Amino acid sequence: MHILITGGCGFLGARLARTLLAAGTLSVAGRAAAPITRITLADRAPPPADLQADARVRYLGGDLLEQATSRQLPEAGTDVVFHLAAAVSAECEADFDLGMRSNFAATHQLLEACRALGSRPVLVFASSLAVFGKLPGQPLPDPVLDDTLPTPQGSYGIQKFIGEQLVADYARKGYVTGRSVRLMTVTVRPGKPNGAASGFFSGMVREPLAGVRARVPVAPATPVAVASPTRTIEGLVRAAEASPADWGPLVALNLPSLRTTVGAMAQALGAVAGAQATDLLDWEIDPAIEKLVATWPGNIQWDRARALGLQADASFEDVVRAYARENPQAVTLRLP
Amino acid sequence: MHILITGGCGFLGARLARTLLAAGTLSVAGRAAAPITRITLADRAPPPADLQADARVRYLGGDLLEQATSRQLPEAGTDVVFHLAAAVSAECEADFDLGMRSNFAATHQLLEACRALGSRPVLVFASSLAVFGKLPGQPLPDPVLDDTLPTPQGSYGIQKFIGEQLVADYARKGYVTGRSVRLMTVTVRPGKPNGAASGFFSGMVREPLAGVRARVPVAPATPVAVASPTRTIEGLVRAAEASPADWGPLVALNLPSLRTTVGAMAQALGAVAGAQATDLLDWEIDPAIEKLVATWPGNIQWDRARALGLQADASFEDVVRAYARENPQAVTLRLP
Repeated sequence: MHILITGGCGFLGARLARTLLAAGTLSVAGRAAAPITRITLADRAPPPADLQADARVRYLGGDLLEQATSRQLPEAGTDVVFHLAAAVSAECEADFDLGMRSNFAATHQLLEACRALGSRPVLVFASSLAVFGKLPGQPLPDPVLDDTLPTPQGSYGIQKFIGEQLVADYARKGYVTGRSVRLMTVTVRPGKPNGAASGFFSGMVREPLAGVRARVPVAPATPVAVASPTRTIEGLVRAAEASPADWGPLVALNLPSLRTTVGAMAQALGAVAGAQATDLLDWEIDPAIEKLVATWPGNIQWDRARALGLQADASFEDVVRAYARENPQAVTLRLP
Repeated sequence: MHILITGGCGFLGARLARTLLAAGTLSVAGRAAAPITRITLADRAPPPADLQADARVRYLGGDLLEQATSRQLPEAGTDVVFHLAAAVSAECEADFDLGMRSNFAATHQLLEACRALGSRPVLVFASSLAVFGKLPGQPLPDPVLDDTLPTPQGSYGIQKFIGEQLVADYARKGYVTGRSVRLMTVTVRPGKPNGAASGFFSGMVREPLAGVRARVPVAPATPVAVASPTRTIEGLVRAAEASPADWGPLVALNLPSLRTTVGAMAQALGAVAGAQATDLLDWEIDPAIEKLVATWPGNIQWDRARALGLQADASFEDVVRAYARENPQAVTLRLP
């Protein structure tokens, strides 16, 4: 079993690799589980030390569009491609050409490279809730279902939605076994802010736990559909595993999300870490971020994911506790 | 007022040019009507003689992808682009790379070329009812609304739907004033079959009226959403004319269609031309065409088009009579 992860050295990519390596085997598209012999991590930046140290891991550094166009990847024998590499939302809105290159052209060329293999690899495409958006002057669709018409209000969302369409047609033609999963707002992300407009959804927990002030740029009542890193990785893996019959004919599905609000997230932070943490939140609206976030739906249904056995986080308190448990070096406050 | 029509020498493109030239003026995006000083027809084949003879018409021959990529078109000062050029459905299904080049890459580069103008031209994109499709094992959406999720079941439909997404984002970014109109099955097309899987919808009228046998490759009960050339051109022109407020925030809309069946179309042919015409129909199912046509919806609602003042053909008999009136040289049967 040979697996390629694009964006494989990013937070989600590295976490996915660790999860797969720890499991040791993977069942693909309903077939019997097989030992994982190699995971190729394609990224611009090298992998973390623990992954570099694993003999099953290979690192392929460079620009994904060039790698795919030149057929450097996926190499022959690749069974599964997890396509996570992307320019993030704020980058794509600020630099249209960057997004078209990194998200649109690179995804297209990666699909072409998969097709060139001739072996119909499984391709799991990380799409996003950002495919959904509020049309000017119209209410947000509520609820958003798996088959609600996406009307993206950002270039990132358009590029992800076009990616879904390409995956659907390359799958229909038999060039890949295609599955698109719409990731929710993943929180709590460790490390540094990544430039996404949604970055504060992690920063408002991560920074206070590290004793650092954090700005919350939207109102407490702002609804949001979140998922922990653990739930998100589960979704990606399940997408690779599902049999064609279990997956069904619609190529894209919504991953599970916990429906909450920014205010309730702050309360959960307080319940875990006390006022010492919530006192570090600066509630100061950023009109640009508020405007963009207001076009993202907070009520996203995920019936198809549930039918695949996936589930949402039970509570945001659980999410905060899991972050603190998994990242002890990043928590400087003494938790009660 | 300078207008570019891609695919401008095809049936619809030439007819659109004639309609615009006859009107002499065009109101664009709600602004005051202005005299049409130039229509550029971009196509591989030269225009018909009547268009060549009009001093306002310029012909730009060549490959659209190359023309757009090299910024040969649209030339500076272009106010409106009607983007009709496309590889048709059966071609795209038989030759995946051709469709990706002609429909996907050419549309992308045309949008880039419009953006490079810096003048935010109006771009009317001819999308298609083929964006809608029946997922395997699921019923067709019925009715199909303007905001029904398209699930195209052919590469042509995917490429058109991706084009809609590109137009939406280039419009949102202010690079073009974008309008996508989903054309219905246009019938009766004059001339020769064009390779579209839907070609028989015209051939089953056109050929018998010319005294030639025609194959009907689907069952009489097959539902279909049709529009005459006249109604289709009206829709394209109205899309260019509509003010932003009248158009609304959703970039793509369904053009009006007459709901009928293949059997009822044959009856209408009989009502106009008698048994001498319908006796020339060979009802012989072609499984490949039947399968593809069965994934196209027959009940397509067009509420947004109606709000723009557009209307469907009153009856298919009217459509047949209009074809016979407009193409006397192609009708060899003596009509009762």
